[in-house]
Amino acid sequence: MKLYEQFPISLTNSLSGKKEPFQPVNPGHVGMYVCGPTVYSDVHLGNVRTFLTFDVISRYFRHLGYKVRYVRNITDVGHLENDADEGEDKIAKKARLEQLEPMEVVKHYTEGFHEVLRQFNMLPPSIEPTATAHIVEQIEITKRLIEKGLAYEVNGSVYFDVPKYNESHDYGILSGRKIEELMESGRKLDSQDEKRNKVDFALWKKASPAHIMRWPSPWGDGFPGWHIECTVMSTKYLGETFDIHGGGMDLKFPHHECEIAQAVGANGKDPVHYWLHSNMLTVNGQKMSKSLGNSFLPRELFAGTHQLLDKGYSPMTVRFFMLQSHYSSTLDFSNEAMQSAEKGFKRLAQALTFIKKTEVPSQAVASDLTTELNRMATECYTSMSDDFNSAKVIAVLFEMSARINDIKSGNLTMDKLDATAFANFKATYIAMMEDVLGLKEETESGGSHLEGVVNVLIELRKKARTDRNYALSDKIRDDLQAIGVQLKDGKNGEMTYTID
Amino acid sequence: MKLYEQFPISLTNSLSGKKEPFQPVNPGHVGMYVCGPTVYSDVHLGNVRTFLTFDVISRYFRHLGYKVRYVRNITDVGHLENDADEGEDKIAKKARLEQLEPMEVVKHYTEGFHEVLRQFNMLPPSIEPTATAHIVEQIEITKRLIEKGLAYEVNGSVYFDVPKYNESHDYGILSGRKIEELMESGRKLDSQDEKRNKVDFALWKKASPAHIMRWPSPWGDGFPGWHIECTVMSTKYLGETFDIHGGGMDLKFPHHECEIAQAVGANGKDPVHYWLHSNMLTVNGQKMSKSLGNSFLPRELFAGTHQLLDKGYSPMTVRFFMLQSHYSSTLDFSNEAMQSAEKGFKRLAQALTFIKKTEVPSQAVASDLTTELNRMATECYTSMSDDFNSAKVIAVLFEMSARINDIKSGNLTMDKLDATAFANFKATYIAMMEDVLGLKEETESGGSHLEGVVNVLIELRKKARTDRNYALSDKIRDDLQAIGVQLKDGKNGEMTYTID
Repeated sequence: MKLYEQFPISLTNSLSGKKEPFQPVNPGHVGMYVCGPTVYSDVHLGNVRTFLTFDVISRYFRHLGYKVRYVRNITDVGHLENDADEGEDKIAKKARLEQLEPMEVVKHYTEGFHEVLRQFNMLPPSIEPTATAHIVEQIEITKRLIEKGLAYEVNGSVYFDVPKYNESHDYGILSGRKIEELMESGRKLDSQDEKRNKVDFALWKKASPAHIMRWPSPWGDGFPGWHIECTVMSTKYLGETFDIHGGGMDLKFPHHECEIAQAVGANGKDPVHYWLHSNMLTVNGQKMSKSLGNSFLPRELFAGTHQLLDKGYSPMTVRFFMLQSHYSSTLDFSNEAMQSAEKGFKRLAQALTFIKKTEVPSQAVASDLTTELNRMATECYTSMSDDFNSAKVIAVLFEMSARINDIKSGNLTMDKLDATAFANFKATYIAMMEDVLGLKEETESGGSHLEGVVNVLIELRKKARTDRNYALSDKIRDDLQAIGVQLKDGKNGEMTYTID
Repeated sequence: MKLYEQFPISLTNSLSGKKEPFQPVNPGHVGMYVCGPTVYSDVHLGNVRTFLTFDVISRYFRHLGYKVRYVRNITDVGHLENDADEGEDKIAKKARLEQLEPMEVVKHYTEGFHEVLRQFNMLPPSIEPTATAHIVEQIEITKRLIEKGLAYEVNGSVYFDVPKYNESHDYGILSGRKIEELMESGRKLDSQDEKRNKVDFALWKKASPAHIMRWPSPWGDGFPGWHIECTVMSTKYLGETFDIHGGGMDLKFPHHECEIAQAVGANGKDPVHYWLHSNMLTVNGQKMSKSLGNSFLPRELFAGTHQLLDKGYSPMTVRFFMLQSHYSSTLDFSNEAMQSAEKGFKRLAQALTFIKKTEVPSQAVASDLTTELNRMATECYTSMSDDFNSAKVIAVLFEMSARINDIKSGNLTMDKLDATAFANFKATYIAMMEDVLGLKEETESGGSHLEGVVNVLIELRKKARTDRNYALSDKIRDDLQAIGVQLKDGKNGEMTYTID
């Protein structure tokens, strides 16, 4: 019996708003598409949460025995300012400002994006297609939508006719928006507008003479609209109907709504069985945003260099922190929450190190403990299978770590443990930590030796202070600073350090 | 005065076979294209040498003050078995064998390729375009070549007409091959052949019904030939005529020869001013090949797990080893050569660590030593500017390291050194090691921070001894010992350390 048969998954579908049993299109296979970044700036922490959510989901599917094809795209053209149909291409604008070829901008930020995801121990997707690598397919589907009467050309641009589509389909099926309200709200079309209806969106945009990123098309030189790439790439690699489409909550409307309309319009089929949306990250209760000054980059978080941060936190601490909440809940970032996550992760990680070295006993023992070990192992799986509840899994892992610590301290001896139950308990703890949650043992830039040696210095410095030998205390701080190790004095004489 | 004006570059152009002064198309700018990997298998050590060559060349251009646009492609379609015009696509074949979507194969081996290059401390190129992202452009140029009478369509495939091109141009200009000899040698065209002439090559191939990687074109569904992608991507991002085209020697014919023919045919211009080719890597005097069993992967080399290897070698040792030969010479791999490279790199790296910490004196001193320091610094530049002679630079760095060791041992005191000359010497040593050759300090489990922090403790301990504070001096030794760091007391109060 496969693990996925033993622990069948249910997941909250944004389409229905309900938790539904997962039934794959092809038994034993999972096709999942997730909207990736537009590579014109550094990836921020909110993006990280989205990609982490789907990293864990794809890891869990694989762990259960599914063969997973996980497609996550890179948007390297067509995403205009303010997510609109007018204005400058985000990448072209950055390229203009920095006097670069747009593809240099793409390469630079793609590298940065991959680097950040590696730091967070995320696995690469199976396929990482780019919008510019699918110009042909985007032109083809646009032609098809025109043929079906669902799109129209004006002045070298092509728009999707939303009201026309809505006559026989439901535009708003995912986001719950009503087309009538969308048509009424906001400004009216003026004579400058090319669109027939204000709700229409671009499939192809005519390139102005100055536009660098351009391709020939039946409608003249231009570039694709933002929404069409995902329809093309998801169905090309996963089929016209596939299992899961994921992304951040902010993409639900209009991006994902438009994806559905495009795919249904072109292929006559609902493209996606399950839509999953991960929720926002807030900071001290506020939405993260550049204008509020509360938005920080992963590297600022690791180094503790942002003014909102008391100190730096390791990538695994951040990963653990994010997984402590369910992906569909908002997650609030605060120094207190991070400090507690740091302690929590350390506890689970230490238990992991210990249990990996602990040999499974050979005897069969029946006791309440046997039942308890099995119950905890099972709860890890039932929690993950219940809409990927990593928060619940972590709670169970804490329970398990308490038992592991009992063994470590000698309160619990191996002769009390049943071989099969302990083997299952041990394998589950390791699998959940490493394979599913993707939490690995961590040694900061320098390994445990560095931590040890810095601690020797910290202890010397504490003693120097107690002895009122401030010259020595200051010298230690300054010498460390000179080589990029920052000591921070906390309350009660405690000291922590960060490394540049 | 810019560094590149002070040390003008000359380089051996494969087109002329001669060393020529480098004159960029746009002053102060360098456009360089290098043929990247076909991502259907693990990158082998021979490839690494090629990419390392151009990594160092691009680093040196940048160091001299040029603005460099370095384009290195990824071949993800169109490269058929045996580099031929018939047979299966390398990536599609791998995908079929492993039951994957071709783009899963592409993603997997692209990840592996990037990982290996990172391990060798190679910088990413400015743009890393893929063949599948330039289907539109490949179709456009093929149309243009047909219009010009230089290509013809047969059964949905398009071929470049080499004899036709050769009527008014020189096919063989790069490789020295004669078209008459190419026409006569080998087998004759048979009735199955579509080509008009055996020397013709494919620009576009008709896709059989089973072929997965396919795109619509004016000639029906198909896929691009192998050579056309590089012509399209190099000229798209660097212009119709650009400075440097690089690649492994094995690509000179037919690949680069075909690139010239395509570009000249389509644009009427020689595409490249300087062609650079890096030479082969041999193993114990034999060509590296899978059939001889003497081909190993970077990871086997690092771990020392291949039967031909006595032990493992670090990425920086291998990098150093490769740079000890000029890129245009064959380079023979042997255990003896690697062991000697390991020692050599360590010597230069230790000198690097030391000189980085050595402060520049403040006095002006005129002496023979001043002349010598300046001579060595200048020789680093003149050697690199002389066809990127990294072998010569390394010889000079050894000379320089001897002087650095004189300072370290006390044989040479700082009051003998002229401020300006030493500053120049120090900056050059560091720049050549780190920026140009890309050799970084490598310390197992700990990094430079660990070394720095231990040194802070060593200095404290020395001072404690001078102060006759033996309690503190012993405490430092014991505390370090407890965490696996052993201090050793040497002569004259010097201390060194080892890590368990």
